[in-house]
Amino acid sequence: MIKEVKFREIKPEIRVLGVDDCPFKPLSHGSVDVVGVVYRGGYWLDGIMTTEVQIDGLDATEKIAKMIVDSPHYDQLRVIMLNGITFAGFNVVSIRKLFNKTRLPVIVLTKEKPDLEEIRVALRKLPQWRSRWKAMIEAGEIFTLKTRRNAEPLSMQIMGISRQDAEKIVKMTCTRSSIPEAVRVAHIIASGIA
Amino acid sequence: MIKEVKFREIKPEIRVLGVDDCPFKPLSHGSVDVVGVVYRGGYWLDGIMTTEVQIDGLDATEKIAKMIVDSPHYDQLRVIMLNGITFAGFNVVSIRKLFNKTRLPVIVLTKEKPDLEEIRVALRKLPQWRSRWKAMIEAGEIFTLKTRRNAEPLSMQIMGISRQDAEKIVKMTCTRSSIPEAVRVAHIIASGIA
Repeated sequence: MIKEVKFREIKPEIRVLGVDDCPFKPLSHGSVDVVGVVYRGGYWLDGIMTTEVQIDGLDATEKIAKMIVDSPHYDQLRVIMLNGITFAGFNVVSIRKLFNKTRLPVIVLTKEKPDLEEIRVALRKLPQWRSRWKAMIEAGEIFTLKTRRNAEPLSMQIMGISRQDAEKIVKMTCTRSSIPEAVRVAHIIASGIA
Repeated sequence: MIKEVKFREIKPEIRVLGVDDCPFKPLSHGSVDVVGVVYRGGYWLDGIMTTEVQIDGLDATEKIAKMIVDSPHYDQLRVIMLNGITFAGFNVVSIRKLFNKTRLPVIVLTKEKPDLEEIRVALRKLPQWRSRWKAMIEAGEIFTLKTRRNAEPLSMQIMGISRQDAEKIVKMTCTRSSIPEAVRVAHIIASGIA
């Protein structure tokens, strides 16, 4: 049983880490950079951190956890937001392990609802597909969350945080668009440095 | 005679490019990444761009101009802010040429007032030192500008813009600290991806 982090109060400047990966050419091999962006709520960029993970590898959870724990921003951070649960292709993050290693709640956001059946078929072609699939399933229920009146809803999975707190933090940090600033900017930076 | 760009109105969301270089080990050779960050005024990160310049080379002006003109953000940009006039060691940007190539006004900001005599001595050890020195001199008068009540003043050099307009844009975009957001964040990203 995962114990949730209790938020007595969620401040507008809560330190949030948004994580995204750099794009890469299909069928390529090797590693891909992953960028973490620290935001004060939806307002100010406080710092960035990077790591690299293997394309279709199995090291995303460990590498991202290490990036976070080794960062000078670690003590300030209160929550991790991932732009999707797979990095560098099908390098699936176990958000249960990521929570356990960092003791920070994890919120996974995607613009489109993940098609689990499609993902399962893709994973089956890869080594150790059962452990990848387990990480997908462990991420739990896929919630739908509307962050702005005229925007499509986001899909959200959570670990170590209540649905209510997660929704509050996500909505509070969507200051510029329908996704939280930390995730939006992690995506821009990861795309820009690729 | 450089013709200034006239700003009829300076909007709070004026698109500003902040440019900084990645740190590198002393005495190393090769090239260094340069990062440009597009901000809407002092508020939102709109995009990033990158290029690379030779350590102590002579290509900074050309590479930075090309990065800007080739960017999808070029049409939106209204002003360029450089974090110092030298990149990757003593690769001096000619802000006159940068203005001519991009038709965008250039504002050079530094936290410490440049010591021209010290720079001249350093440049003399490098190939084509006269053209480097010319770029330094052409950048013109070094103004002092206090952006926040309790902060040290910045040093500023300008090209293609009036002192009054430059001061207004710099102050307006210092939303988070005593330097404009685009420059602050360009520095964080350049340091973080190095």
